[in-house]
Amino acid sequence: MAEMGIVILGSTGSVGRQAVDVIERLQGRFRAVALAAGRDGATLLEQVRRLRPEAVALADPEAGRQWAPHLEREGVRVLVGPGAAEEVAAWPGATRVLSAITGAAGLRPTLSALRAGREVALANKESLVVAGELVTRLAAERGTRLLPVDSEHSALFQCLEGRDPAEVERLILTASGGPFRGWDRRRLAAVTPEEAVHHPTWRMGAKISVDSATLMNKGLEVIEAYWLFGLPASRIDVLVHPQSIVHGLVEFRDGAVAGVLGVPDMRQPIEYALCYPERGPRLVRRLDLASVGSLTFERPDTDTFPCLSLAYEALKAGGTAPAVLNAANEEAVGAFLARQISLPAIADVVATVLARHRPEPADTLDRVLAADRWARDEARRAVEAIGARAGGWGPTGR
Amino acid sequence: MAEMGIVILGSTGSVGRQAVDVIERLQGRFRAVALAAGRDGATLLEQVRRLRPEAVALADPEAGRQWAPHLEREGVRVLVGPGAAEEVAAWPGATRVLSAITGAAGLRPTLSALRAGREVALANKESLVVAGELVTRLAAERGTRLLPVDSEHSALFQCLEGRDPAEVERLILTASGGPFRGWDRRRLAAVTPEEAVHHPTWRMGAKISVDSATLMNKGLEVIEAYWLFGLPASRIDVLVHPQSIVHGLVEFRDGAVAGVLGVPDMRQPIEYALCYPERGPRLVRRLDLASVGSLTFERPDTDTFPCLSLAYEALKAGGTAPAVLNAANEEAVGAFLARQISLPAIADVVATVLARHRPEPADTLDRVLAADRWARDEARRAVEAIGARAGGWGPTGR
Repeated sequence: MAEMGIVILGSTGSVGRQAVDVIERLQGRFRAVALAAGRDGATLLEQVRRLRPEAVALADPEAGRQWAPHLEREGVRVLVGPGAAEEVAAWPGATRVLSAITGAAGLRPTLSALRAGREVALANKESLVVAGELVTRLAAERGTRLLPVDSEHSALFQCLEGRDPAEVERLILTASGGPFRGWDRRRLAAVTPEEAVHHPTWRMGAKISVDSATLMNKGLEVIEAYWLFGLPASRIDVLVHPQSIVHGLVEFRDGAVAGVLGVPDMRQPIEYALCYPERGPRLVRRLDLASVGSLTFERPDTDTFPCLSLAYEALKAGGTAPAVLNAANEEAVGAFLARQISLPAIADVVATVLARHRPEPADTLDRVLAADRWARDEARRAVEAIGARAGGWGPTGR
Repeated sequence: MAEMGIVILGSTGSVGRQAVDVIERLQGRFRAVALAAGRDGATLLEQVRRLRPEAVALADPEAGRQWAPHLEREGVRVLVGPGAAEEVAAWPGATRVLSAITGAAGLRPTLSALRAGREVALANKESLVVAGELVTRLAAERGTRLLPVDSEHSALFQCLEGRDPAEVERLILTASGGPFRGWDRRRLAAVTPEEAVHHPTWRMGAKISVDSATLMNKGLEVIEAYWLFGLPASRIDVLVHPQSIVHGLVEFRDGAVAGVLGVPDMRQPIEYALCYPERGPRLVRRLDLASVGSLTFERPDTDTFPCLSLAYEALKAGGTAPAVLNAANEEAVGAFLARQISLPAIADVVATVLARHRPEPADTLDRVLAADRWARDEARRAVEAIGARAGGWGPTGR
């Protein structure tokens, strides 16, 4: 098999770094033609030495100034600035682009890759949450495809692959429940950012770890599943499964339930999305269910973790509502990580912004981005209001 | 869709009765052209009134004499005697034959159906255990296929359907562990037939319930899986899973594990085998994992339940060894049900007979049947030897 050209967007993040590992271990299968990072020039330089791409992007101008000389000394073309990732997303010679930039910032590069006709291995769920209509329409127009990288969606994709969509009754996304499963709201109010980013089963970036702790991550995944698999919200369920061994389940019309299981290690779904339609060699530990012993399942506690219900509401409202949900959440998570609001207040901020929003069609990028900006402003206002009411929060305020 | 003609072999047994239910509930999809039973004329008569087949078979001459007049009064053709099932197995107008006669007695009718070019929905695992080479060769020659009905093999079939066999690393058959999981051999020695036939999760006939209690059933299923899916014994594993929710698992080369789950209800795999390649409507309870709560897994205890290891040995020895394993087991189970030997002594009988056997190629029916007869004689001798040593066993001997 000829080497496949690959671009990694967000190469210095958690998924990006694991993708670099996967590509290195599958020597001869892939050629990284370009990498895009935010501001972690040191990691990017190291990745350039390992993968020898043609081009790299650094979004942060300051990081660009600092690291461009070192990167150029390696013989790589360096693009700097907020539009750089978009440019390398369409870099010539690539068949597949791994979209692994965190948050709504991943949208433009994802659209750029699709516009260039690239297959997109999508770890940036926000692209679909914010602009699912635009992203899926563009992929269809260009005759290319989206390959999910999230372990849950990768599992559903594997279960559905080659099956008749008319026979699918229901999708079930599993959720670890996060580090605070079983806690009540009062106890959650004292959680620090350090506690929230320590996830029990998955190693991930800070933002997604917080989303996992609030169950917003699962809410975003429900919206992602809606766009990837085309089932209505009423037929996408969430099941808490703390061991994170069963990644996703598909119920067929006759009652049979197909699932994909595996050790919780992102390198498996990353490898699957890169190698699809083939399967590469095993890079992760083998699943040994007898050693695992027990798999447990429970319904999500949406009273304590209302973000999940908010995501369903936004999906049902449609149009720009999911973009607003996502933007408000990103701002609220940022405020939590900056110790401005408590963990449960993230849901309060999102609920406040969502209640004020009048959804419009999300059929142009301008509309989506306008909704995103509006929601961020509203969210910041909500954060300030909470701060004013509480007289400050966080290590200094407690 | 046009009605599909169906023959049910073993229609009055546990699988057969459930198949009749499935066919009735899927009105308009199937037409039962013929039914075959052993000696339960009353149930057969009732089924004739429900399904209106053209022909029925009763294997037992005495039952035939008693019930033929009643059956004929319903306008159905009645065939009686040991060859009757073979004849209706090839009855004209059927596309698919459900082979659900228990034990090695199901072999000839299964071969008859395949010889007539019928697709065979196979619940009679003994056909493959005893004569896997003949059965699979005949199916290939006639360009027809075998559709597994055992829940475990149905699950594996569903996981493998449409997948590249080269990417399959390992098959995992789940086992409930039977009613005596966790017991030791001493305690097993006191088990009565009544206790052994009471299975914790599945409702089944007496013979298969005893096989389930000794783990021989799982051993036979390993051999069945070998013939159905073509993987060597070293890549077919057994995992004890008392809840019987996960029916089978397939590990792919990249470490992803696909599974099929469902409530333990034979009507699901029966329906799947009858409707394949479509899926019919849901006839079973919906699987609700949050209500199930916990799924547990452990390695099988082959010290206490050596029948599983004996089956692996027979599969590795090849040729007529699996036929001998099966025949010795059928005789030993019969002796246990007749209170002549204890439950653990079933394994002793099988081990004794297997140790005396010199495997030959299992490439003709004569050779297979000769091995079967030899093994039954040897098994009866072993049963007598145990009886003589123990001074009798059972309610009278204890």
